[in-house]
Amino acid sequence: MTNKSKYSLLFDINSPKDIRDFDLPQLKTLCSEIREYMVDIISQTGGHFGGGLGAVELTVALHKVFNTPQDKIVFDTGHQAYPHKIITGRRDELVTIRQLHGLSGFLKRTESEYDVFGAGHASTSISAALGIAEANRLKKSDDRVVAVIGDGAMTGGMAYEALNNSGYLKSNIIVVLNDNNMSIAPNIWQISNYFTEMLAHPDYNRVKGAIWELTGKLDTFGDRIRKAASRLETGIKAVVTPGLLFEALGFKYFGPTNGHNIGQLVSQFEHIKKLKGPILVHVLTEKGKGYKPAEGHIQRLHASTPFNKETGEALDNGSKKPSYTSIFGKALTEIVKDKKNVVGITAAMPDGTGLNILQKEFPENYYDVGIAEEHAITFAAGLATEGIIPVVAVYSSFLQRGFDQIIHDVSLQKLHVVFAIDRAGLVGADGPTHHGNLDLSFLRIIPDMVVMAPKDELELRNMLFTAVEYKSGPIAIRYPRGSASGKELKPGFELIPIGKSETVRQGKDLAMLAVGNMVAFAEKAAEMLETEGISCEIVNMRFIKPLDEEKLKEISGKFKKIITLEENSIVGGFGAGVLEYLNANGFKNEIKIVGLPDYYIEHGTQKELYNLIGIDAEGIYKTAKSFYLG
Amino acid sequence: MTNKSKYSLLFDINSPKDIRDFDLPQLKTLCSEIREYMVDIISQTGGHFGGGLGAVELTVALHKVFNTPQDKIVFDTGHQAYPHKIITGRRDELVTIRQLHGLSGFLKRTESEYDVFGAGHASTSISAALGIAEANRLKKSDDRVVAVIGDGAMTGGMAYEALNNSGYLKSNIIVVLNDNNMSIAPNIWQISNYFTEMLAHPDYNRVKGAIWELTGKLDTFGDRIRKAASRLETGIKAVVTPGLLFEALGFKYFGPTNGHNIGQLVSQFEHIKKLKGPILVHVLTEKGKGYKPAEGHIQRLHASTPFNKETGEALDNGSKKPSYTSIFGKALTEIVKDKKNVVGITAAMPDGTGLNILQKEFPENYYDVGIAEEHAITFAAGLATEGIIPVVAVYSSFLQRGFDQIIHDVSLQKLHVVFAIDRAGLVGADGPTHHGNLDLSFLRIIPDMVVMAPKDELELRNMLFTAVEYKSGPIAIRYPRGSASGKELKPGFELIPIGKSETVRQGKDLAMLAVGNMVAFAEKAAEMLETEGISCEIVNMRFIKPLDEEKLKEISGKFKKIITLEENSIVGGFGAGVLEYLNANGFKNEIKIVGLPDYYIEHGTQKELYNLIGIDAEGIYKTAKSFYLG
Repeated sequence: MTNKSKYSLLFDINSPKDIRDFDLPQLKTLCSEIREYMVDIISQTGGHFGGGLGAVELTVALHKVFNTPQDKIVFDTGHQAYPHKIITGRRDELVTIRQLHGLSGFLKRTESEYDVFGAGHASTSISAALGIAEANRLKKSDDRVVAVIGDGAMTGGMAYEALNNSGYLKSNIIVVLNDNNMSIAPNIWQISNYFTEMLAHPDYNRVKGAIWELTGKLDTFGDRIRKAASRLETGIKAVVTPGLLFEALGFKYFGPTNGHNIGQLVSQFEHIKKLKGPILVHVLTEKGKGYKPAEGHIQRLHASTPFNKETGEALDNGSKKPSYTSIFGKALTEIVKDKKNVVGITAAMPDGTGLNILQKEFPENYYDVGIAEEHAITFAAGLATEGIIPVVAVYSSFLQRGFDQIIHDVSLQKLHVVFAIDRAGLVGADGPTHHGNLDLSFLRIIPDMVVMAPKDELELRNMLFTAVEYKSGPIAIRYPRGSASGKELKPGFELIPIGKSETVRQGKDLAMLAVGNMVAFAEKAAEMLETEGISCEIVNMRFIKPLDEEKLKEISGKFKKIITLEENSIVGGFGAGVLEYLNANGFKNEIKIVGLPDYYIEHGTQKELYNLIGIDAEGIYKTAKSFYLG
Repeated sequence: MTNKSKYSLLFDINSPKDIRDFDLPQLKTLCSEIREYMVDIISQTGGHFGGGLGAVELTVALHKVFNTPQDKIVFDTGHQAYPHKIITGRRDELVTIRQLHGLSGFLKRTESEYDVFGAGHASTSISAALGIAEANRLKKSDDRVVAVIGDGAMTGGMAYEALNNSGYLKSNIIVVLNDNNMSIAPNIWQISNYFTEMLAHPDYNRVKGAIWELTGKLDTFGDRIRKAASRLETGIKAVVTPGLLFEALGFKYFGPTNGHNIGQLVSQFEHIKKLKGPILVHVLTEKGKGYKPAEGHIQRLHASTPFNKETGEALDNGSKKPSYTSIFGKALTEIVKDKKNVVGITAAMPDGTGLNILQKEFPENYYDVGIAEEHAITFAAGLATEGIIPVVAVYSSFLQRGFDQIIHDVSLQKLHVVFAIDRAGLVGADGPTHHGNLDLSFLRIIPDMVVMAPKDELELRNMLFTAVEYKSGPIAIRYPRGSASGKELKPGFELIPIGKSETVRQGKDLAMLAVGNMVAFAEKAAEMLETEGISCEIVNMRFIKPLDEEKLKEISGKFKKIITLEENSIVGGFGAGVLEYLNANGFKNEIKIVGLPDYYIEHGTQKELYNLIGIDAEGIYKTAKSFYLG
């Protein structure tokens, strides 16, 4: 339980209105209490952490100065928004964050009127804020709108599109660049390198040299002029700052400002609030600020399980089985050891995708392109034209960002690009923005795609090997978040024939066609059904596209009733594909399609969600039984 | 026929090797002959035109200087690439361009080894070229790679992602910015505005003022210093040029260069060819250069039907019926007249989408956001949060670019955004990059989406009205490229009940469930079948999602055999949805799904393609007959 007595202000704050009259000492106290409270709570519950700690002063300053919720604050990728949740009436519920029926880990419009725009994917805030700014213009409202975006999200093309459009429209929009210079992975933002190099630029130095030379010749006044030239350099620096990029895009630039100086932030926002047109405020913050074990650990406390408050060490979360992610990362590294024309590509998720393992061993064969899924895929397509084999490792829900590129740049040209799709299916606590519930449906409609799902980590390894060896076009493997089965890995790899399934259990009453981790659930369900005298045959289909048509014919002939099982939407997914095939070929079996429903699924643990939806062993058992008996 | 005798050089050029030894006068002659040849041929055949005319010298210079095809030239959106086709062995085939089995209007890898990377969608070239550059690095090859990208395509976020990544990697890549300052629509590139405004910047002027003031005080040397200050201004201008944005992203900037001075281009490329690292060459060109009727007409000769060579006037192409595009543009304008909270949004296609009509009458309610589909959609979502009703008008195949935004920013938040999807189905001459063959499949899998297709222009008007009135979430209307039926329009609009179909023909033997313009084909097919004694019922389903379940039940009870008809992939499309519904609800009808096949369909006229695939009246008649009798 939280010890309320150690907080002098925090428990009186029920909405931002309660801080509008605060003086500087009160604001400072509040900030430190928010920090302490976050550490208190998140150490128990787990959650995204570092981003929020870095944004405490910024959040408080914004809510103090701007008249929220009438003025709007749009946070880019909401996991920096915990302080925002705390001071907008959700302090006491913070303990439920990311839990089933609890607070969302991101912003959520249905959760609070202060949550202006939900965001689990990066780089959307400026676009959304610009929409609000233009709505204000159309409604002749003077309300202000502020987008808060991290330096990582600024690498996304959408952010650039939105900046450019804002400048063109000269809209009344304030963009706060929350620059912690570390994003999720080490900064790959070229811009930030530039400004340190700028003053070494030959053109710049030519100008400077000319001045210097000239003043050297001016005997009497030399020193005075040199002083002027110095002042000039400062002047040029004022022009040629990080601001320049934004100025070029039509923004008025302010900063860089110390993002942990609440007084300075408040007075700057007070000033800016009165200005019109596109404004960019560059705020420097430190991720994990104020919590020693987090400071300086770039990835450590980005997304965290519960941890020891004193040391920052994660508490044991039970599973000792390796994750699919690490199995993939190691397998790819093994493959690259033998084949130097294979490269791994990530869009700013080296740890999340397991590519950090490759990076460490073969940095030459590793690319982190920033939060830039569109570019990642077409970049891969370019590599593929030259015989390099790119493996794009990406979360299922983020792959949606590159949908057109898969079609237009990869598949249409039959280029050999491998997609390693992590976080396919339900991801748990991150909820609906991160659930990978559509990939089978949107990949299956693309001509010439090969789409696979492994039943376990051994098969993942072999599928990856198969995908790299396959030369004929795009090929994807999708696998879930979390622990694999814990099976012992064999050295080496085996090729899997394209489009070939595997029957994992013989039976005579009912056929189950399963993909991915549904195979294991099906096996358990089959055992339960067996005890009731229902004998199930289970096929690990392995390929969602192309389907194993021979096997489908065989199953169709042998069984009257067939269940398909997938951790993907039942709309247009694997089961739908089976149905399309059987229908087109005149088979009349009864088909039951089991998968994710056609609505957005909330957050909760994976186990809870599987159970809720009825796609765990128990749920499959029940569905299969009633289908068989029905 | 082409009069070869008027060309002294062109007919001896069979590959770029043939021009490598050309001297300047020869290069000039060649350029003027290419231009003349293009006008000769394209006036007969039609085709994209202005972009190619503007890129003649640039293309010749690149092929002269770089050792293609070993060195690689990647053209962004291939319709600037006609001169490239002419000098890479396809001169004589140019007359077949965009025709069935003829040359593609874009680059195409299977067409020529000189076509490095196909592109019908914009902003992909730098990503692809960077892939090639990194492949060169991995292979330790010194081959060069050049991306040629227009200023319009530079507004796309992907281009920025790729520039940023190139700078970070310090790759050996040359980007040629082919800046004709008019893109497809009038330039909305904020950058270009900036540089003219830059020198009016207060910071800059403060510095300048300080110098001026200082030098004023230096009696004797005043003039001399002022001269220095002037020189300084030039110096600053040298730093603060259009190059700055690119320098900020890690590129070495060259230009701006006159893109019609072949001598200058050749010598600049000769110099640049020897340099390493990311290089940007800014080339100023004029769209339509050298052909008077095209010069100065921004949109006129972008994509052209055959035209009179002397005047530039389009030759009559037969159809006097209005296009779906113009019907839509006018209907939206009518709606906005009554409802000032409705806005139209286009991603750089005002004419192509019909939004130019809205722009003219209600400029305040019109947005052109640049080639930026991702931003367009999230911008719309932002507007929607404030009660504005945005209508995003977009080509089907370009909407793929915003797939994640539809899901994550619009649908997940149940925001009321209207998608007006033009060019749905087969588009004809533009071919596979532009066919809108997947939208029903990828929209249908998104929860809470409403997806409609009108059977004719009257229904399009009513569906648009319905979509604007619908308040509960995202809603899409998809309609084909080209002429509507020519029916007389009624004033005013009617609401269509969501999810309600319309039976357009009663029958007793066979049911046809059709969407969009398949309804008209079905009606003709039904007449043909009637003469053979087969009586068809036809339902204009109108809604792909939600389906009219009541009607499906009724049809299911009444007919043994049901045909579904759609101009969309048969994989996961409308028919698949019907099948899923009937299967889930235990109906046992025989279903025949008719639509586009699961492969990429080439270019040709729409009529030719419908016929090839068998989805015109004749094809439907045949399929229906054999299905009924089978």
